[in-house]
Amino acid sequence: MPTIVVDVMPKAELLDPQGKAVSGAFSRLGVDEFTSVRIGKRFELTVDGEVTDDILAAAQRIADEILSNSVIEDVVGIEVVE
Amino acid sequence: MPTIVVDVMPKAELLDPQGKAVSGAFSRLGVDEFTSVRIGKRFELTVDGEVTDDILAAAQRIADEILSNSVIEDVVGIEVVE
Repeated sequence: MPTIVVDVMPKAELLDPQGKAVSGAFSRLGVDEFTSVRIGKRFELTVDGEVTDDILAAAQRIADEILSNSVIEDVVGIEVVE
Repeated sequence: MPTIVVDVMPKAELLDPQGKAVSGAFSRLGVDEFTSVRIGKRFELTVDGEVTDDILAAAQRIADEILSNSVIEDVVGIEVVE
C-alpha cells in the first residue's frame, strides 16, 4: 500500500533542546563527526488505493494544519513512497 | 553544509500510541483519506566539510547505537542531503 511521508522539523531560527541534548551526548561519547543535530518528526500516512492529486492535497493540508505547529515547525517534505 | 538525514520509525509489529492518537483525531475531524498513521523521528546531522565513507559509517553506527532503540525502533533510512 502506498505511504505518504511527511517530514516536520523545528524552524531553523529556533533552539532545538532535544537536538542540543543529543549533540552534547555526542561530545561526551567522543563522536566528533557532526557539528550539529536537529530532531524532527516523520509521519507515515498509509493510503488504501491509489494516491490521487486530491489525496496529496489532503496530505498537504493536514501536514500544515494538524501534523505541524506552524509557530515553531516547518513541513520540510511530503513524498509518496510505495 | 551537507546534512545526513537519519529516519527512525517504531517497529512495524509494535503499537504506536502516538500514531493511533493522530489517527483517532483524523476520524473525529472527518479526514478519511488515510487508513493509518505511524510517527517516527527524523534526525538531521550537520557535517562540516565533505561526507566521506568514514563519516557515513559513523552515522550508521550512531544511528544504530545512539539515535534508535533497537528493541522498539528501526533505522529506516540514512541519506545525504546537500
